[in-house]
Amino acid sequence: MFTGDYLRELTDKAITGLGSSSEADRLFVPVRYILSIGGKRLRPVMCLMACNLFSDKIDNAVMPAAGIEVFHNFTLVHDDILDRADIRRGSPTVHARWGADQAILSGDVMAFLATECIGHAPEKVLPQTLKSFNRTAIEVCIGQQLDMDYEKKGVVTTEEYLRMIELKTAVLVAASLKIGAIIGEASEKDQDLLYEFGRSLGMAFQIQDDVLDTYGDTKKFGKKTGNDIVSNKKTYLLVRALETAGGEKLRELRKLIETNDGNAEEKITTVRTIYDELEIRLEAENLAYDYFNRAFRALDQVSVKDERKNELKELAVNLIGRVK
Amino acid sequence: MFTGDYLRELTDKAITGLGSSSEADRLFVPVRYILSIGGKRLRPVMCLMACNLFSDKIDNAVMPAAGIEVFHNFTLVHDDILDRADIRRGSPTVHARWGADQAILSGDVMAFLATECIGHAPEKVLPQTLKSFNRTAIEVCIGQQLDMDYEKKGVVTTEEYLRMIELKTAVLVAASLKIGAIIGEASEKDQDLLYEFGRSLGMAFQIQDDVLDTYGDTKKFGKKTGNDIVSNKKTYLLVRALETAGGEKLRELRKLIETNDGNAEEKITTVRTIYDELEIRLEAENLAYDYFNRAFRALDQVSVKDERKNELKELAVNLIGRVK
Repeated sequence: MFTGDYLRELTDKAITGLGSSSEADRLFVPVRYILSIGGKRLRPVMCLMACNLFSDKIDNAVMPAAGIEVFHNFTLVHDDILDRADIRRGSPTVHARWGADQAILSGDVMAFLATECIGHAPEKVLPQTLKSFNRTAIEVCIGQQLDMDYEKKGVVTTEEYLRMIELKTAVLVAASLKIGAIIGEASEKDQDLLYEFGRSLGMAFQIQDDVLDTYGDTKKFGKKTGNDIVSNKKTYLLVRALETAGGEKLRELRKLIETNDGNAEEKITTVRTIYDELEIRLEAENLAYDYFNRAFRALDQVSVKDERKNELKELAVNLIGRVK
Repeated sequence: MFTGDYLRELTDKAITGLGSSSEADRLFVPVRYILSIGGKRLRPVMCLMACNLFSDKIDNAVMPAAGIEVFHNFTLVHDDILDRADIRRGSPTVHARWGADQAILSGDVMAFLATECIGHAPEKVLPQTLKSFNRTAIEVCIGQQLDMDYEKKGVVTTEEYLRMIELKTAVLVAASLKIGAIIGEASEKDQDLLYEFGRSLGMAFQIQDDVLDTYGDTKKFGKKTGNDIVSNKKTYLLVRALETAGGEKLRELRKLIETNDGNAEEKITTVRTIYDELEIRLEAENLAYDYFNRAFRALDQVSVKDERKNELKELAVNLIGRVK
């Protein structure tokens, strides 16, 4: 079995070769930039690990795995325009550095660079690979739309929120694993189990990310906590709190998220206190663990020897283990 | 052989079924809008005609042809943001109607709807079809980049201009025909000849479009003439005029395009006069005809009976015949 580090290297090597043209370097400089400023390469590594479950020949999956990473970064470039986000991974976002017009166009070319990479899947599995990729890409766009819609909407239900993060985040993790399995020529059942593993893991990850933004250790988490509270972002915590709170507490919470002029630290503390009183953190962590366990149950059922699953298990534990 | 009208109907039917989701209708309303406000369906019809040259079974090409049209409209949605264009085909552009954020995201989903349609090509020819599509999509993005770059650049050579319109316009017409040929299982040589037919036709069309914007009959052309002059757009006419003019004439032309405060009608008349003195219109029309003839020479060499080529020939003549 190949280690995560080795697979990350393979991905990086494949990505380095992408996006250049002697004719229009302005188009590709931002592409290389966003692909170079870090990121854990989580999705391509998972894709390659899923392939490696079924086959020791993973070369066929490297370009499609790179394509998934390019697609993921494409969504970041465009989402950062929509979110007016100026910093990503500690560096200026593409639109902050080169303007929105350039970010639109450099993002666009990444969509097709991604599909071009997917096109390197072996002919035998290309139709299935492409289908899974396209379907997922469309779903991710729907997820981003729901995210935009929900930010403007007064009341968002937990159900709506969970479906939004499923589309915006979880399905791409799921498809990364499924595509690896497809290229590894897994059975349809195993492909679906890996999709479910990824979907549940993605859900657990996103819910935990919400918890960490409010409760995380700034040092370990790598970014300042409380951002979501200050910006009134509709996280799992806020959505659940608005759903659960009643009477005076609900009024207080509503007032806090309707005004933006108070002291930020004070707001963080007050909202946190409301969350604590409603036991929202506990609830969120329990839900994340439910998803985490669901992910592992799916992986357990995949019909390869347990020892082949160690790399994927370790990666999943490292990913979710952050919370503790 | 199928007529253009019938093929247009087929395309429209395929396109009508695209882009819906019970979950995020806001995402797809602009998609259906841009696909419904007209357009000649030139590219998908050419794709189907190219397929029909080699095969009477064109069903396999309908979805990929629709995908090409969706891709073309995707580029329009995003280009209109970059060009700050508020009107397209007599209707408000997507960003004018729903805002730039929505236009970015609805455009994005079209990129993947397009690829999904391309994915319906028969398995046997899918790798080749996808490769041609992706390569072309990337080239179109490069073309748009060059267009943006050139608008900011002082001096653009004819060579640069021609390469820009080749990438931005001609290669997609070329690929439409090539993809039709691929799905019709044409020989590689015939695929290449049809690509060349489309490329040359696309070049002729774009150069003529430049001529028509300045010299066209407003009624026949369907839009007001002189727009390019007023907005100082780097058309073939302007690029050539700046290359050809000398002395006082060059100074006058430079002054006209560096200031924007004069009378529009006056500016149109003066610039037209300079073009006329330099015989730029004649030169442009000659170049368009050179490309037009090159297109027909390529089509002539395609190894099917001449009578099978009538629909394509008629369409090409109607397209370019507009100028006279």
